[in-house]
Amino acid sequence: MGADIGVTGLAVMGANLARNLARNGYTVALHNRTSARTDALINSYSNEGTFVRTESLAELVESLERPRRVLIMVKAGAAVDAVIDELTGLLEEGDIVIDAGNSFYEETRRREAALAEKGLHFVGVGVSGGEEGALNGPSIMPGGSKKSYESLGPMLEKIAADYNGEPCCAWVGTDGAGHFVKMVHNGIEYADMQVIGEAFDLMRSLAGLEPAEQAGVFREWNTTDLASYLIEITSEVLEQEDELTGRPLVDVIVDAAGQKGTGRWTAISGLEVGSPVTTIAESVFARSISSQLGLREITNQVFPAGINEAVTAEELYGSGDARQDFVEDVRKALYASKLVSYAQGFDMLTAAAQEYGWELDMRTIASLWRAGCIIRADLLDTIMKAYEGSEEQPRNLLLAEEFTEAIAECLPAWRRVVAAAATYGVPAPVFSSSLAYYDSLRRDRLPASLTQGLRDYFGAHTYQRVDKPGTFHTRWSDDRTETEV
Amino acid sequence: MGADIGVTGLAVMGANLARNLARNGYTVALHNRTSARTDALINSYSNEGTFVRTESLAELVESLERPRRVLIMVKAGAAVDAVIDELTGLLEEGDIVIDAGNSFYEETRRREAALAEKGLHFVGVGVSGGEEGALNGPSIMPGGSKKSYESLGPMLEKIAADYNGEPCCAWVGTDGAGHFVKMVHNGIEYADMQVIGEAFDLMRSLAGLEPAEQAGVFREWNTTDLASYLIEITSEVLEQEDELTGRPLVDVIVDAAGQKGTGRWTAISGLEVGSPVTTIAESVFARSISSQLGLREITNQVFPAGINEAVTAEELYGSGDARQDFVEDVRKALYASKLVSYAQGFDMLTAAAQEYGWELDMRTIASLWRAGCIIRADLLDTIMKAYEGSEEQPRNLLLAEEFTEAIAECLPAWRRVVAAAATYGVPAPVFSSSLAYYDSLRRDRLPASLTQGLRDYFGAHTYQRVDKPGTFHTRWSDDRTETEV
Repeated sequence: MGADIGVTGLAVMGANLARNLARNGYTVALHNRTSARTDALINSYSNEGTFVRTESLAELVESLERPRRVLIMVKAGAAVDAVIDELTGLLEEGDIVIDAGNSFYEETRRREAALAEKGLHFVGVGVSGGEEGALNGPSIMPGGSKKSYESLGPMLEKIAADYNGEPCCAWVGTDGAGHFVKMVHNGIEYADMQVIGEAFDLMRSLAGLEPAEQAGVFREWNTTDLASYLIEITSEVLEQEDELTGRPLVDVIVDAAGQKGTGRWTAISGLEVGSPVTTIAESVFARSISSQLGLREITNQVFPAGINEAVTAEELYGSGDARQDFVEDVRKALYASKLVSYAQGFDMLTAAAQEYGWELDMRTIASLWRAGCIIRADLLDTIMKAYEGSEEQPRNLLLAEEFTEAIAECLPAWRRVVAAAATYGVPAPVFSSSLAYYDSLRRDRLPASLTQGLRDYFGAHTYQRVDKPGTFHTRWSDDRTETEV
Repeated sequence: MGADIGVTGLAVMGANLARNLARNGYTVALHNRTSARTDALINSYSNEGTFVRTESLAELVESLERPRRVLIMVKAGAAVDAVIDELTGLLEEGDIVIDAGNSFYEETRRREAALAEKGLHFVGVGVSGGEEGALNGPSIMPGGSKKSYESLGPMLEKIAADYNGEPCCAWVGTDGAGHFVKMVHNGIEYADMQVIGEAFDLMRSLAGLEPAEQAGVFREWNTTDLASYLIEITSEVLEQEDELTGRPLVDVIVDAAGQKGTGRWTAISGLEVGSPVTTIAESVFARSISSQLGLREITNQVFPAGINEAVTAEELYGSGDARQDFVEDVRKALYASKLVSYAQGFDMLTAAAQEYGWELDMRTIASLWRAGCIIRADLLDTIMKAYEGSEEQPRNLLLAEEFTEAIAECLPAWRRVVAAAATYGVPAPVFSSSLAYYDSLRRDRLPASLTQGLRDYFGAHTYQRVDKPGTFHTRWSDDRTETEV
């Protein structure tokens, strides 16, 4: 009998997924461009399950049971195409090619279409949880044909993270849907980290709370509706002392945030599908700004004042009740901003589902993120409830019964914190952008009518009227009468 | 003797450019897919200059002097490729193909490379100023080879807008540079209009200033350093009364802003070249949000309060000195936010110049926008000064001598306005985003160090230290010691 699945690309992510599969009772055929990695894996972990050593893709394919399942875990981009090209010559109708890397969903759509023409299933799978998740249970977001999930799904569900007995794996939609959902996950992750950073900065700059004290604050927050993996590890990072200097580690780390591109993809895709993902875009931009170290240094010299007004944290919210109140205000601002970023993320999924013809189930997607991945949080359970039931779903998460009260309760604090940030010069781009989003959506009239007036003036772009149907233009450079066009 | 230039595509933009060329003494060969348009143009405007009627691209090409210059003005996208395909079979080495439409710069880069292989010059030209500009003098931003500009430049300079005797046309850079610069112009235009909208909304909601009164305010602002075409026409639009209802026209126009895509392109390109164009992105998103009319209506029902706090404009800034002070605060907030959006636009040009190997001259680019185009403004003159001289140029416009004082002077007002917007629930996404950008750049430390700590914790992404070179990782799941990697 052949192996259950083949894995090609045995760097740490591929190796860990292979081990996870083997530990769960599957026979795993292994292949790597250089067989040293294959040997290393087998030498170290043959006790974990059954591995089949192969030296070429042809041998890998030969070793598999039908329909064959080949999981590719190589660097996103040209390397994926190279492996696919070689594989297509070796596989037969009904076989399944799985790309578990961080591919851009448009690439996945292209590859799926090309392989479908050859009778092959191509499954783009979003995998979140890093190396540790790959080994012990990641969050898995498979796309591709529904048919392929019949054969592949049970295996993926077995190796996925477990949330109270439910696997964090489910088919999310055709072709690139899996990679798209994973991309949105990463965009939300950027926003989640940015709001934590803004909260940290505000509490330190305006209430004088040092990192070690804030570790305690975040630990306490982790018992509230903010409870999540990222809040949890924030305490860990904040209480870490640098061995070398004795200072808090966060003060020793260069404040230039790196990025690997998936957040940027999310913001770009949001723009492309016409979904206003302001919090994700601001989070991506905040990382870019932070890494312009040279420019920042000069700007700091030209505009040196730290906190604009001549007040100290002590005078502001530095002690006693004022401090406690401010910390609670910041917690609420963080929660509300986080809700907005999830609302925008799901709004973007809705827009993409329309654009690409995917039948995304928002409740299922929320369920996949409850364990195994970086944004895992109690909030996802509440989001699932918001999407529960077959009746009308909320047009936007902010409108779900589960959240309207929470938002109303956070609102005054949210406003105070954003106003304080602006007043005292602590940048809080996502706190303020998310508040502006909320205020824009709830407003009865927006100044977009003036924008339309201007566009009609200089470009004859026309406008609609509130009181009757039709499209209108004012003859601005003529007698300024209105005409229906 | 043959014609000086051929124009194909005689919808209003193409026709007006052709007339502009003829009025300036050039013999213009005309072609359109259906010759009715060609005939209409010649019948109506033959008195303006010399036109040559042709019925096919072959005939058009035949009618031209060498090197031939063919200007295409058709819908961006496939139509451009179709015309190019046909033309390349007809043209000879050294001939020049000009795309004066709103093409995406990546397309222009692709086309330029393809035509260069055939020995043809392909020139993507950004043209701003709409129909009226095309006829009487637009702002012209040509890309393509420098060689092509020798023959083409003088013609374009002659038909371009004139600013105190200088033409608003100059070669900006190779291949797609012209279309890129035009795209950034449009992104800035989005931000310019959004800050005007935010100012209008704030003055109305918080100081009770009605449109007709605001027409006067904007007219006055047009005598300050805000003087610009868009501020000028804002007064015109605000004082326009609807014939049908007698209400201000802006109150009758549906408040859903349309967009034709170039702003979105700018935000996407900013993300792609790693330039944080927060004001442009927020402006694009603000238009998207405004057009979600169904969602807005429901949200307004769920969260009905207009201005959050139980205060009226009268109590806030509604009368006397308070009102005057607030209006002046808003003016300063608008000016500072506008400066940030220009700073981000030019930062994006700098990043693109590096990415695509363009030698963009920022002073020249600013000069092209001084007349003919939508964002024409006195500010451009000041920006030119900021980039004057061959010595070190400002790393960011905010750092230019010409602006540092202005920013410092606007800062307290800017802070007050953003804080008021947040406090009273008037969305001001660009005012607040631009302030956050300024505060981020000038800050000595950003919470990005915490982001890096978190990324190292969950993904072993490593970090740099402030006190020594190298790349480091803390063994978070082990003994939490630091290792150099």
